[in-house]
Amino acid sequence: MSSVQFTITHKLDGTLARAGKIATPHGSIQTPAFIVGGTKATVKALTPQQVDELGGQAVLANTYHLMLQPGAAVVHEGGGLGAYMHWSKPTFTDSGGFQVFSLGMAYKKGIDATSHSEKGSGDLATHSTHQLAKVTDDGVTFRSHLDGTKLTMTPESSMELQHAIGADIHMAFDEATSPLAGRQYLRQSLDRTHLWAERSLKQHNKLNEQHREHDEPEQALFGIVQGGREEDYRRESAQLLGHMDFDGYGVGGVYEPGEISHVVRWVNETLPEHKPRHLLGMGAQPADLFLGVEFGIDTFDCVAPTRQARNGALYTYSGRINIKNARFVHDFTPIDTNCDCYTCQHFTRSYVHHLFKADEILGAVLASIHNERFIVSTIDHIRESLMDGSFYAYKQTFLNQYYGAAHAKTYLS
Amino acid sequence: MSSVQFTITHKLDGTLARAGKIATPHGSIQTPAFIVGGTKATVKALTPQQVDELGGQAVLANTYHLMLQPGAAVVHEGGGLGAYMHWSKPTFTDSGGFQVFSLGMAYKKGIDATSHSEKGSGDLATHSTHQLAKVTDDGVTFRSHLDGTKLTMTPESSMELQHAIGADIHMAFDEATSPLAGRQYLRQSLDRTHLWAERSLKQHNKLNEQHREHDEPEQALFGIVQGGREEDYRRESAQLLGHMDFDGYGVGGVYEPGEISHVVRWVNETLPEHKPRHLLGMGAQPADLFLGVEFGIDTFDCVAPTRQARNGALYTYSGRINIKNARFVHDFTPIDTNCDCYTCQHFTRSYVHHLFKADEILGAVLASIHNERFIVSTIDHIRESLMDGSFYAYKQTFLNQYYGAAHAKTYLS
Repeated sequence: MSSVQFTITHKLDGTLARAGKIATPHGSIQTPAFIVGGTKATVKALTPQQVDELGGQAVLANTYHLMLQPGAAVVHEGGGLGAYMHWSKPTFTDSGGFQVFSLGMAYKKGIDATSHSEKGSGDLATHSTHQLAKVTDDGVTFRSHLDGTKLTMTPESSMELQHAIGADIHMAFDEATSPLAGRQYLRQSLDRTHLWAERSLKQHNKLNEQHREHDEPEQALFGIVQGGREEDYRRESAQLLGHMDFDGYGVGGVYEPGEISHVVRWVNETLPEHKPRHLLGMGAQPADLFLGVEFGIDTFDCVAPTRQARNGALYTYSGRINIKNARFVHDFTPIDTNCDCYTCQHFTRSYVHHLFKADEILGAVLASIHNERFIVSTIDHIRESLMDGSFYAYKQTFLNQYYGAAHAKTYLS
Repeated sequence: MSSVQFTITHKLDGTLARAGKIATPHGSIQTPAFIVGGTKATVKALTPQQVDELGGQAVLANTYHLMLQPGAAVVHEGGGLGAYMHWSKPTFTDSGGFQVFSLGMAYKKGIDATSHSEKGSGDLATHSTHQLAKVTDDGVTFRSHLDGTKLTMTPESSMELQHAIGADIHMAFDEATSPLAGRQYLRQSLDRTHLWAERSLKQHNKLNEQHREHDEPEQALFGIVQGGREEDYRRESAQLLGHMDFDGYGVGGVYEPGEISHVVRWVNETLPEHKPRHLLGMGAQPADLFLGVEFGIDTFDCVAPTRQARNGALYTYSGRINIKNARFVHDFTPIDTNCDCYTCQHFTRSYVHHLFKADEILGAVLASIHNERFIVSTIDHIRESLMDGSFYAYKQTFLNQYYGAAHAKTYLS
């Protein structure tokens, strides 16, 4: 039996949308849910208490970052991810796959996530001439973005790392392809991702077996569906992985909210209905959440809400503002009068503006609390709207207000 | 009647030490107390909620910093210091005097707090050749350390600024002298400080008069005792200011714990007993607190606990540690097993070490919570030891453990 149990409690007729809960050894996640980004075993700028108070239900940390700092063994020695970072609710890790491709080639180069092109797609060796991560069927060789150390990650080593880190939900090791990858490269990559999915699952089951022998808690594994923007590849991937014994699924390689209504739909029309579905790395835009849910996503994760917060880009129900703008000096209203977060309940735009201009850490803290709460609160309302049937009305009102009617149309068609 | 009321509840026989409380319009401060540094209307890295939870009783902000950013008028418009930064308990401001001397000459020069020497003491104009703040009997002309703008501060303008900022307790505008200043310069400077004290008080009373007319809360003013390390000057200053109608006193120009047993003693033997006494800018070393209290100090302020925290220098009952040291990678004990702060209750040295190595904001937050709590908790214990008569036993145990017996001797003689 899986260590996580998914229950669907509400469905929205004629759509792929559903509400439910994922029960884990560390409590339940009410879905749809936003999984708060906890890259290096910390939600940037926030204490676990603050994450809890803003309604965060679960945290997702990055295997790639933790393997480099402080090392998966240290996290394990510290009691595993939850204990190490003092987060008692559910935890996720990704496989490291996305980062070895996007950061593993970035040492001294800057990040270039769009380097897979049809041009080099027939000859994998050409990738290394661009200091890219080097892919073979065995795994990926890449360099640490911190110090350039040459490292290798395979499906087996990703599973070993994730089991050492010890989150409740793990992800299979996949190849993250660029949005610019063409069909020829995607075909090879997808075959490799499917091969790696099998190897991930096999290694994961072996490690869970060891946990059982030692009376330790087991972990869950999600398979990752890839296939770019190609309908046949996406459906093939969802079908193939759907028949494997994963505890849930992740949808990788989606970059824009505009892709959700087709790419995510193809995948979720094909995947088994009774398993949870996670959209990898999206959820910084309200459109991501509304469209993701509409097309069958249960959980989201994204580090952009805190990253944007640290840059002073704050979400409001009438769109994003840059709090560093001089027009806020004398603005003694909250960031958003309709927001119930600690920041909006107690501080003004003027004060948060001052903190940013004065380069005070508290600026990043208050901004991060607000942005995370805004996203969490939005997905909470979406969940309620699925339960009472008001989803489409809520979606229309929200997106019109946030993007303006002209832009919102894109997401309302 | 003063807007603050000081009550002494306990005295330690044969010493200047006392415990009591300062009642302000925003509640009482149990003394002796550590006033948490809130330089730019924020306790660096901490939310007001965290400052409250770690036992902070009051916050001290800097007039110099606030006049530059966001401007005293903005703080006033935002409801005054407490409302602006959402701190509902008592607040202090300093006069700006110390900063115009120490930072006001630092633009493009680095900070040089030791530039007053006997050499230039007879000729004030020579100070400006070193890009120093320029002092006349009227006030001080200096440059903003942020953008080099030429500014002037006088006793009157300091009072205007402090009344606009609106803390409960203000400080008279004084001249901060360097630890290297000789008798000749100190003499001139002290006369000026006394002149400025009178002008500060006069302007303060005028502004309080206006508050009364507008049914606004009044503020309290502390006079600042100077005089370097010269006993006659210190006693003269304490005597002279002691006869003026201040609500309390600050002791300025003390730089080392070793000076407390004579300099602070001279002052507090001379000042009227029934008014509160604040030691300006000290309290980062346990010795500051024990000696300050022993020689008659009621309140302390210092930004070093949070500054050191951000550098990874953490207080423990057996001395200071640098959490960035590699020996903490596998140390899964709290920073101090005897500390009751949020950080020590929930996180390990290994985790805090990781946060510092990974340059995570949460490292600064958790370290700041710990250092502030350590200092607040120490002064709380000192207060209790005054009440039950165990002060000297506590002092001896604490300092021996913290500094080691050899070094602690200096403070125990």
